[in-house]
Amino acid sequence: MAKAKSYAAESKDAPLKYYEFERREPTENDVEIKILYSGICHSDIHNVRGDWDDVEYPCIPGHEIIGKVTRIGKSVKSFKPGDTVGVGVMVNSCGTCNACKTNYEQYCEEGMTLTYSSEDPIDGTDTKGGYSDLIVVTEKFVFAMPEKLDITKAAPLLCAGITMYSPLVHWQTGPGKKVAILGLGGLGHMGVKLAKAMGAEVWVFTSSPEKSEDAKSYGADGVIVSSNEEEMESAYRKFDLIVDTIPVKHELEDYLKTLKINGTICIVGQINPMPGFHGGDLIGGRKSIAGSGIGGLKETRDMLEFCAEHNVLPDVEEITMEEVNDAWDNMLNKSMSHRYVISVKDSF
Amino acid sequence: MAKAKSYAAESKDAPLKYYEFERREPTENDVEIKILYSGICHSDIHNVRGDWDDVEYPCIPGHEIIGKVTRIGKSVKSFKPGDTVGVGVMVNSCGTCNACKTNYEQYCEEGMTLTYSSEDPIDGTDTKGGYSDLIVVTEKFVFAMPEKLDITKAAPLLCAGITMYSPLVHWQTGPGKKVAILGLGGLGHMGVKLAKAMGAEVWVFTSSPEKSEDAKSYGADGVIVSSNEEEMESAYRKFDLIVDTIPVKHELEDYLKTLKINGTICIVGQINPMPGFHGGDLIGGRKSIAGSGIGGLKETRDMLEFCAEHNVLPDVEEITMEEVNDAWDNMLNKSMSHRYVISVKDSF
Repeated sequence: MAKAKSYAAESKDAPLKYYEFERREPTENDVEIKILYSGICHSDIHNVRGDWDDVEYPCIPGHEIIGKVTRIGKSVKSFKPGDTVGVGVMVNSCGTCNACKTNYEQYCEEGMTLTYSSEDPIDGTDTKGGYSDLIVVTEKFVFAMPEKLDITKAAPLLCAGITMYSPLVHWQTGPGKKVAILGLGGLGHMGVKLAKAMGAEVWVFTSSPEKSEDAKSYGADGVIVSSNEEEMESAYRKFDLIVDTIPVKHELEDYLKTLKINGTICIVGQINPMPGFHGGDLIGGRKSIAGSGIGGLKETRDMLEFCAEHNVLPDVEEITMEEVNDAWDNMLNKSMSHRYVISVKDSF
Repeated sequence: MAKAKSYAAESKDAPLKYYEFERREPTENDVEIKILYSGICHSDIHNVRGDWDDVEYPCIPGHEIIGKVTRIGKSVKSFKPGDTVGVGVMVNSCGTCNACKTNYEQYCEEGMTLTYSSEDPIDGTDTKGGYSDLIVVTEKFVFAMPEKLDITKAAPLLCAGITMYSPLVHWQTGPGKKVAILGLGGLGHMGVKLAKAMGAEVWVFTSSPEKSEDAKSYGADGVIVSSNEEEMESAYRKFDLIVDTIPVKHELEDYLKTLKINGTICIVGQINPMPGFHGGDLIGGRKSIAGSGIGGLKETRDMLEFCAEHNVLPDVEEITMEEVNDAWDNMLNKSMSHRYVISVKDSF
């Protein structure tokens, strides 16, 4: 056992506070990691506040983790102490179902083991995430970090990055395609950068006109303010794909009009009820409303290589653990068009 | 002008009654067609009853038409008097928008001209459909009927057939794919036959267990009664594609569970409001809710050739015009798992 320091939520509404606990000794397949950086994801807020499911407290969120290997179990082959590694949204899956056998561990039929607030199949405890200085993860779910990636910024790739990369690849984003990103926060700004690096024409839908400059600085070819009817109408049948990062219930009707024939709007933010829709809005142009969740292990490795090769990194604002509650407030105010990363190494 | 006999609705709730009117003289691009057979589509009922849009009365429905050419305009090149031809759901479109230029006339940006209850761009009148003994249609929207197709049965291909063919082709139905058809009526039974002819494994979801034998007689490999929880659970992640023919508002949640990862449920029946859905049901397995509407001119010609080659024809029950009101009642009772065709030639 090794003592871990963290920031934890002790109830649904309480601010995060300093909290100590014990991480397990690495089993034979485990990698123990000293956490250096931990990204803040909007889903951390949803989870802690019980928006998605019942949560056990204390809850230690965080699933965008970069660190250094400190110890390894005796069967671990891929890593050695000192290696720079990453951990994302999941730390285990059944490994035997059709999904797991086809590189879709995130869609495991038994349910993946989330990096926090999930029952750990190895020791039966509730998993505890990256707002912490130490974590122990089974080898298969640890990612080697490509050398070229700047580790001070790379943490958000492990959730925001792969969440955007997977649908962009699946719907064949590339030269000649027009892609829109709906919502310019942590996910959205990664979407702009990734789609641009893939060669597409990229637009941003935002309800916050003041984010236009940010969108363009990330590479967007244009911005559509969603409350501006004229701008919305000018985008009639414009896009092959919209990746929708809005993390709350919202109507899709106006966005469906901006899809080309055979176009898709893919929800990645709202893992919760959505309002009704009109069958005619899909039938009139063979359109689709889809969803996509993070990516599998292989796809995450592909994404890290892609980002290293194309120098795609989030814009991050480094904070210490003490600033995490203020960061959450800013995210809830929709004022963020980039990502907070907690410098864990500077926090304890 | 030529006198046409028909059955027309004089109001939303009135039974169809005998009605005479004048069809226009063929313009230079028009084909005049003596109607022999006219299929009854569920949408005829929706339209006449004003479920979808305001309708002008008298309304003469019918958009699954087989007939013989009687006269042609002087510029008509593709047809001559005596030819057997078909007319489907649309009789015109703008011809110049991106949709029309890419063989998607059904998704015309200006809106296609429907075969009935639509303003005819040629003479400004309200279009009148196939529950009639005569129709005049611009050449481009008339289909040559392949010789091998049995014209006593082929009429429903022009709407039910193409409505199912288009999504089945788009989502790559073929050997190795598992497809389910949701609802076994006029559309559904065509879906089973088409998907089977394309080489897929085909299942039917139905709320009417008594339709199981019919489903199997059309070629279905299996039937799932949607109210049977055990059967629904046994179909977990089974299908690549579900084509959903239900023509009323309905929940999709249980069907989404039966889609494989990356699977799609495509709505073709409900051109109206649908209830809300759960984002997580799409995100958990990268699933899509799509819609599809009939097919373009080229695709309809392809479909007719496919059906001729593979001997795919609807199961039809031939009636005369006098029986049309009873037929509608049976369709509304969900008791039909095949298609009514009005033998117009035997009706007046």
